[in-house]
Order: sequence, then C-alpha cells, then structure tokens
Amino acid sequence: MSDGRPTKILALSGGVGGAKLACGLYAVLPPGALGVLVNTGDDFTHLGLSISPDLDTVMYTLAGVVNPETGWGRAGESWAFMEATAALGGDTWFRLGDKDLAVHVERTRRLRAGEPLGAVTAELCRRFGISCEVMPMSDDAIATLVDSDAGTLAFQDYFVRRRCAPRVRGFRFEGIETARPNPRALAWLENPDLAAIVIGPSNPFVSIAPILAVPGLRDALARRRVPLVAVSPIVGGQAIKGPAAKMMDELGIRPSAAWVAEQYGDLLDGVVIDEADRGLADTIRGPRVLVAQTVMRDAAGRARLAAEVLAFAAELRR
Amino acid sequence: MSDGRPTKILALSGGVGGAKLACGLYAVLPPGALGVLVNTGDDFTHLGLSISPDLDTVMYTLAGVVNPETGWGRAGESWAFMEATAALGGDTWFRLGDKDLAVHVERTRRLRAGEPLGAVTAELCRRFGISCEVMPMSDDAIATLVDSDAGTLAFQDYFVRRRCAPRVRGFRFEGIETARPNPRALAWLENPDLAAIVIGPSNPFVSIAPILAVPGLRDALARRRVPLVAVSPIVGGQAIKGPAAKMMDELGIRPSAAWVAEQYGDLLDGVVIDEADRGLADTIRGPRVLVAQTVMRDAAGRARLAAEVLAFAAELRR
Repeated sequence: MSDGRPTKILALSGGVGGAKLACGLYAVLPPGALGVLVNTGDDFTHLGLSISPDLDTVMYTLAGVVNPETGWGRAGESWAFMEATAALGGDTWFRLGDKDLAVHVERTRRLRAGEPLGAVTAELCRRFGISCEVMPMSDDAIATLVDSDAGTLAFQDYFVRRRCAPRVRGFRFEGIETARPNPRALAWLENPDLAAIVIGPSNPFVSIAPILAVPGLRDALARRRVPLVAVSPIVGGQAIKGPAAKMMDELGIRPSAAWVAEQYGDLLDGVVIDEADRGLADTIRGPRVLVAQTVMRDAAGRARLAAEVLAFAAELRR
Repeated sequence: MSDGRPTKILALSGGVGGAKLACGLYAVLPPGALGVLVNTGDDFTHLGLSISPDLDTVMYTLAGVVNPETGWGRAGESWAFMEATAALGGDTWFRLGDKDLAVHVERTRRLRAGEPLGAVTAELCRRFGISCEVMPMSDDAIATLVDSDAGTLAFQDYFVRRRCAPRVRGFRFEGIETARPNPRALAWLENPDLAAIVIGPSNPFVSIAPILAVPGLRDALARRRVPLVAVSPIVGGQAIKGPAAKMMDELGIRPSAAWVAEQYGDLLDGVVIDEADRGLADTIRGPRVLVAQTVMRDAAGRARLAAEVLAFAAELRR
C-alpha cells in the first residue's frame, strides 16, 4: 500500500485446484494481502466429527503440510485410527488420517462449544502459521446434494463413497436460502484495498456455484468495483482433477474452457484458459481472455500462474 | 448351571488392578458368567471427546489389546494424532493414542446421539469380541473431585496432569446424589444365578468408593445373599500401582491390607491379602481372610488368583 494502490486479492476456492492457485497467490503476495473464500457445501459430519474438506485442503496447502501426491490430506499421514475403527466395524469409506484427525477433533470441539466456523477456521490457520485469511463461505450449514440416477446423494456419498460413479442430473445446496454469508467475506468484498477477485480452477458446479449461491455473496460480487478473473478448471476438454468434465458430459454440456467462461456469465471480467485451449480464445465472448500454463505441477508453476493472473487482473483494472 | 448351582460372578473394578483380576475371572469362568461393574468417576471430556479411563482399561484388558507395559492404553499404540495436536498448540497432558482414539470417537458419537453409556459400553465390548458384560456404575455423569493442598481438582487433573503430587485431604463424587445406578448392575445384583461378588484390587478411595456411593448400589450390595470378597490393593504397606498408599498416608492412615478390610466394613464376607501380609491375617476382625499371591504378573498369575478367589467365595457360600 506504499503507493496507495489497492493490494488485496480475494480468491474463491474449492479443493485441490483452487487451493493450488491460492498457494501460488500466497507465495507472490505480501503477508495479509490474500483472502481465500472457500466452499463449505462439501462439509459433513462423519464419525461424529465435523469435516470441512475444502477448508482443510486450502489450509493444508497453504501451510505446506498437504500430501503432494493427492493434493488433499496431510503429507506423511498414518492410518492407525482408521485401522482401529475398521477393526471395530466402523465406517472407513471416508478415510481420516491420524494427523488429519487433530484438525477434525479441534474443529468439532470448538463448533460444539458454540464458536462459528469462520472463527474456528481463523484459529486453526493461525496455529498452522498461515498469514493470509481463509474464510468459509458461511458459518451456517450448507449441504451440496447431488441429484443422480442413483437418487439424491449427499455430496461425500457421491464423491468419495461412490467415487462419482452415478450420473448426475443436477445439484442443490440444502440450507442455502437461509444461510448468511461469512461476515469476513463481505468485509473483504467491500474493502477499498481490494484489487481483484480470482475464481480458482475449481469445479464450477460443486465448488464455485455454492459460494455464488450464498445469499448476499453473489450480489456483493456483482457490486464489486474491481476485476473478477476466473481460471478455467477445464483444460483440453478434461478436468485436471475431479469430476467436473464428467458432470458436464452427463448434464449434456460439452466440457470446454469456453463453457466455463459462459457459466460465470456477466460476473466475469477475464478468464484464464490453458495453452492447450489457445484455439478457443477467439470463441469466448464477453470476458477478456488470458492464455497461460494453468496446470500447476509444482510450487514454481503455482507462483508463475498466480503472477500471470495478478498481472492480467491489473491490466483489466486500468 | 448344569447342576443348578448359581454360577455368575460380579466383579467391581477401577483401572489396572481390578481389570487384571477381571481378566483372570474371565479366563477361568464360562462365557457369560462374568459381569464387571466399573467406576466412571474418572470419566471426563478431553479435546471434546468423552473419555472413560477405567471402562477402557477393563475393555482393553479383557479384549487382550491392552499395553502390557502400562496396564492401560493399547498395545502397539502410535501417537501421530497427539503430535499433530501438540503442533497445533493443543493439550497433550492426557495422551490419546491413535488406536485408542477409535474408541473415544465412537463413544462420543454415540453418547451425543443419545445412547446411554451402558449401551455404548456393551456395543464397544461386543465389537471387541468380549463375551462378558462390562457395565459402567451409572449412565449419569459422576465426577470424582480431589480435595487437596492445591485446591479441589478434577480427578484427571490430579492423577495425570499433576501426577498425584498434591497432598489429598478427601474426595467427593460430584453428581452422585442424583445419579441412578446402571440398571444392568442392579439386574446382576438381583440375579438368582449370582454366586459371589468380588471387589478387585483397585483404589478404595477413587475406584471402589464411587461405585459404592451410587445411590441404590450400596443398598443392593448390602441386601445380597451371596458372599462378597475383596482383594486388597495394598501389599506390604504399598500399592501395587497408583496412589492408594500415598493417599492413605496423606489422610493419616497407615497403609495396610488390614485397613482395606476395615474400610469396606460389614459389606465384606472375605478379604484376600497377599502372602507378604500373612502376618496381618490374625489382626483382621470381621471378614474371613484368604492369604494368596495377589500380585498378578502375567496371565497365569491372574487366572490363579481368580481361581483362588472363586474357591474362597464358594467356601464362604457354604
């Protein structure tokens, strides 16, 4: 802020892809300049514990303790709890590692004591030494439901237990009508220091749509005076990770970065598509297009994409 | 029951000592013939989890999964959860192992869903393949408080966090006035098949006294028509494990097996003292005395003591 220009960046994120871009932004921005607004539609209670998969993926990634193989869960994890639970006949389809448990137990304890999820998340991030702000989209419970040929499924049932096998027909976000946006998210969106908003390469249906569906958040995004840029999670017609492309296919949408740009509609000032999709650039109407290497293979790749996205947003701001 | 004689044995137990004798009884009695009535005054909530130390020690011992070095906790335990909790600045004075956590998480989940502790315990024991009945003294919360020169302390604060260092002045069992006895314990005490009741070598102040203080349990014990035998936890003026002798000393009582016999008063038909205390046998007034090897060093030692206690009780029944 030495030159008086706005410096803060708000990133919207689901799990792995959004977390990687958030991590790149975290690496290239000064301390305190990044806020990450995270989907909580995947949250659920398992074995009596409050699990927030996307918040944890973002937190573990920013803290540098994420499992580099999977992009979620913790590095060097062990599974003694899970094995003991299995031996007792307990559910093991959603695997909770021994280290990972420390977060779930602490989160559950604090939520039960009446702390809002936002405060719990902030405290966990503080303890992990994370110097940016990670925010759930809401402190209220919102549950993504998947309408499918196997019926209406809770998200983790669809995603983890059934490994995305059912064909999807649509999505609903239970509790969204009465959910209030996380007050910190609104504060970020209204902060005069905000320079840009970045939608990470996360699943449009089940990671970004729930955030945009929280009453008040979409309006606040529409009222913004700063550029909003989205990074496409679809590269060459495929999802880098997760079921986004499969979902599009089942919904009768041809998976493409161009569709992603359309999906966010007039919310978008810019879209970042992969080199592999350079040929699509001219077909995208509305937002400005940046072609970049969007597949983040390592820390350098994350930081490079983050820097390009920031430069693109700065250009759009002029 | 082939010859129509009563065959059931109810053992009263705290942690390690009582659990070992219960394990001996379990080894020598037919399936279903043993009930173990367990102290829950040590129970507490830690990291948001419902911990029942004595129930777990009995359960792990009977299931053969107890740590043989300590007599409590699980064999082959790992500590990744605890280390991750420590790294997050969480409490680590009460150490929860990764395997052990499977029980605490499942118990907590069931209690929060409204199941009584007795039902939760029965289900956990079933899953551990235990074919005797392990019962908490009550489904209601009872908390042993230690009045000491460091103030009034929650039991685990005194016992684990402060390693029994404060000098004790007395004990209280918070919640005991309104606690109801576990209905299964009353059923055992009133069962016409009951042949004897055995008080294990557990701490008289903080393991056995709480059980006897549950309204209805002491009366039911006093109304019994079968012999009640106690095994002294004091051997040669010392406690085999734990702070019983230190507590006696601080309360102005000379630690001795004879005092244990007096403590249980007219409840007792027989007392089992160690070979080391043979000289005390003649000084004990009231109950009949059996001198035996009460220090259970291994499975054989547990089974041998159990068999001797059963024979002693059978003799008292004639």
